Amino acid sequence: MSTNTVSRPLTRESVEAAHQLITAHIHRTPILTNTTLSQLASTPQTPEALRATQWEGQAPAKPKMRLFFKCENFQRIGAFKVRGAFHAVLRLIEEQGIEEVRRKGVITHSSGNHAQALALAARTFSIPAHIVMPSISTPSKIFGTRAQSATIHFSGSTAREREAVVAAIQADTGATLVPPYDHPDIMLGQGTVGLEATAEVAELLAASPQLGIAGKTGLDALLLPCGGGGMLSGTAISLYNTPTRVYGAEPSFQGADDAQRGVEAGRRVESVKTLTIADGLRTNLGIYPWEIISKKEYVNGMYAVTEQNIKDAMQLVLERMKCVVEPSGVVGLATVLYNEDFRRMVEKEAAEEGWNVGVVFSGGNTTIEAITKIFADEGTSGEELQRAQGTLGRDGKKTAENVAG
Amino acid sequence: MSTNTVSRPLTRESVEAAHQLITAHIHRTPILTNTTLSQLASTPQTPEALRATQWEGQAPAKPKMRLFFKCENFQRIGAFKVRGAFHAVLRLIEEQGIEEVRRKGVITHSSGNHAQALALAARTFSIPAHIVMPSISTPSKIFGTRAQSATIHFSGSTAREREAVVAAIQADTGATLVPPYDHPDIMLGQGTVGLEATAEVAELLAASPQLGIAGKTGLDALLLPCGGGGMLSGTAISLYNTPTRVYGAEPSFQGADDAQRGVEAGRRVESVKTLTIADGLRTNLGIYPWEIISKKEYVNGMYAVTEQNIKDAMQLVLERMKCVVEPSGVVGLATVLYNEDFRRMVEKEAAEEGWNVGVVFSGGNTTIEAITKIFADEGTSGEELQRAQGTLGRDGKKTAENVAG
Repeated sequence: MSTNTVSRPLTRESVEAAHQLITAHIHRTPILTNTTLSQLASTPQTPEALRATQWEGQAPAKPKMRLFFKCENFQRIGAFKVRGAFHAVLRLIEEQGIEEVRRKGVITHSSGNHAQALALAARTFSIPAHIVMPSISTPSKIFGTRAQSATIHFSGSTAREREAVVAAIQADTGATLVPPYDHPDIMLGQGTVGLEATAEVAELLAASPQLGIAGKTGLDALLLPCGGGGMLSGTAISLYNTPTRVYGAEPSFQGADDAQRGVEAGRRVESVKTLTIADGLRTNLGIYPWEIISKKEYVNGMYAVTEQNIKDAMQLVLERMKCVVEPSGVVGLATVLYNEDFRRMVEKEAAEEGWNVGVVFSGGNTTIEAITKIFADEGTSGEELQRAQGTLGRDGKKTAENVAG
Repeated sequence: MSTNTVSRPLTRESVEAAHQLITAHIHRTPILTNTTLSQLASTPQTPEALRATQWEGQAPAKPKMRLFFKCENFQRIGAFKVRGAFHAVLRLIEEQGIEEVRRKGVITHSSGNHAQALALAARTFSIPAHIVMPSISTPSKIFGTRAQSATIHFSGSTAREREAVVAAIQADTGATLVPPYDHPDIMLGQGTVGLEATAEVAELLAASPQLGIAGKTGLDALLLPCGGGGMLSGTAISLYNTPTRVYGAEPSFQGADDAQRGVEAGRRVESVKTLTIADGLRTNLGIYPWEIISKKEYVNGMYAVTEQNIKDAMQLVLERMKCVVEPSGVVGLATVLYNEDFRRMVEKEAAEEGWNVGVVFSGGNTTIEAITKIFADEGTSGEELQRAQGTLGRDGKKTAENVAG
C-alpha cells in the first residue's frame, strides 16, 4: 500500500504546483558564489592530477565556468528531503482529507534524511509517523528522528526484514507508505529545487551581473547528486525544454555509478552494494526516476567521481566557503573540478564564452566525528566509516543495505 | 614609525566615516538565525553541566534570548580583519596621497588574519606590503599571505626579533607600520561591524518580526570576541549611547582572560602567555583598546569561557548551522550558552521579556586538519594543537609569542 494519490503528470507545471503547496513549510535556501572556486573550476588540472586516472597522459580540459551553489545544506532538517516529504504528505491530505490521513498515519523505512523529513512533515499536521529503521542505526539518527515525535520501529537490517515490519504496521494501522525517492509525488517535490535555483540565479545576476559570464542572465547548466534519483529526475522535469541543461553526479566507488552504467547499457541497474563515503548515494536508481534520467532530453549526462574527489571537494567547501556539506552533497562540485569528461564537455559546448554552472549542495548532515573519521587518516575507507557510524557489525559484515535515503 | 595619521575622534561618527570609506571593499556579511540555538540559549543548563565549575551547586539561570549571528566568517579573507586593514590603508592614502604611500609601502608583523587582510588592502591599491612572520609559521599561512602578493620577511619568533626585522625594513623602505589592533584607525575600522550588525538585525526584524522577542525592533545586546581588543573597542565606540549594550568574550585558559582581570583590577594586564585553542585571542589587550574597554559605559561586561566551552560551541555551529567558525570566533556563543554570570545577568536585566542578543562570528579561518586535531582526541591540549600548527618546537618549547592578530 504505497502512497496512493492520483498521479500528477510529470511536467514543469506539476513541479510548480508542488512548489505552491510546500513553499510555506520549507526554507528558500540561498545561492552562494565563491571567487576562488570559480577560478579553480576554470583552471586546467595539472598532468600530475590526472596520473593514475582514466585521463592520464591526456591534455587537461580548459573549461570556463562561473559557479552558483544552491545551499540545501541550510534547508530544514539540513537537506532537500523535506521538499518531497512535505509534498507527499500534502498530496495525501488533498486526496484523502486530513482526518483520514491522521487516522491512518504514514510510514517509511529509512535511517537517513528522509526519515527525519517525513517525521517533520507528519508532525506539522499532527499525523502519526512510523519510521522503521535497523536496530543497529546510530544513536544520533535515532535521536534526530525521535525529536520529530515519530514512532520508531526497529527491524533487522535486510530489505526483507524491514519490509516485513512495514507490512505488519500497515496491517495494524493502515499507514500509507511514503518511499524516499521512488514515487512521482516525491520526485515532483524534490524538483522544486530546480525551479528555485534557476529563478534565484536569474535574480542574482540581474542585481550583480559581474558574478556571472558576461551578458548571460541565467544558468546554462545545473548539476545534482544522484542516489535513488528523486531530486535529479524531479529537477530534470522542472527544467525540461528550458535553456538550463541538467546533469547528474554520483560516486564511482564499488559500482555506486549505477545510473551512469545503466544509461550506457540502456537498462536500469537493479542492485548496488557500495560503502562509498557519500552515504546518501549508496542506493541504486528507482524505477520512476529511471524513466526520466534515462532520457537524454531530460538529463544531458551522468558523471562519476572518486572517494578522493569527494573528500577534496568537501575540504575546499569547508575551508574556503566556511560551509559544511555532507559527502553526498559535494559530488556535483567534485564533478565540476575533477571529472575531465564533464570539463571537456563544458569546454566544447560553452566554447570561449563559458557557462554559468549551478551546483546543488544537497545536504549538510554530517558530524565532527564523521569528518574526523573521513580526514583523520587518509587510509580511512568507506567501510571503516560505516562501522564508525554503526551500520556495519564489528566484524565488518554488512548488516544493512541501501540505508540511504 | 607607526601609522601616523591625524587621529579621528573615537566617536560613532568616525566609525560611520570609516564605513563610508571601506564599504566598497568589504562584504556586507549576513545575519543568520537558528531556532535550535536560540532555544538552547533559553534553556537552563543542567546541574550536571555546572559540576566542577565555579557555579557548581547553584541554581542554573533561566534567561530568555533570541540569537542573531553576524557572520564575519564569510567576510573577505575569512575574518573581520579586512575592515581595519582597509580603513588604515585608506586613511594613510587620504593623509599622504597614494603616490607617497606607494613609494614607502606598509608593514606589519603577524602570521594571522591581519597579515592577509593588510596584504589584500595593499594589493588593492598597488601598495607594497611587507609582512614579517616567524620562520616557523605554518605553510598554509605563508601561502595565504603570498597569494596576496605581499613580500614575506622571516624573523625569529620572539617579539624582540620581530621588531628588529621590522625596524630594519622600515629604515630601508620607509614603510608605515600598520599594527593589528593597537591603533585608532584599526579600532574605527573594526567597529563598522557594530554598525552593520545593529542595522541588519533591525532590517531583518522589520521584515520578519517573529524571529525576535515580541515587540522589539533591534538588538538589546551584542557580544564580541576580545583578543587585542580592536573590534570590541571599535564596536563599543560605534554603539555608545545607543540601546544596544556591548559585551566582550574571551578564553580563560592560562590567563587569556586578561581583559576581564584587568577591568576587575582597574589596570591593564601587560603580558599574557597562553596556548588557548582560540589562537586569535592569545594576545593581551592593546593600550588604545584598553582605554575604551575599561570604561563600563562603553563595554558593559567581560566574560570568559573554557576550552571545552569553545569546542562545544564550535561543534554546535558546525553540526547545527552547517557553518565553519574558528575557535576564536565562537567565544561569544560559548558565553551565551555556558557562562552562568552572563546568563544570570540577562535573566536579571531582561526579566520576563527576554533579549535579542547579537553574537559576532569573527572569523572562519580553520582547516580540516586543525578541526581533526581539536576533536580527534578529547585530550588534545592547546599546546598539542599549537605544535601541530608549527608554532611550537617539537620539544614543546614555546617559540612564538602573541602570534595572533
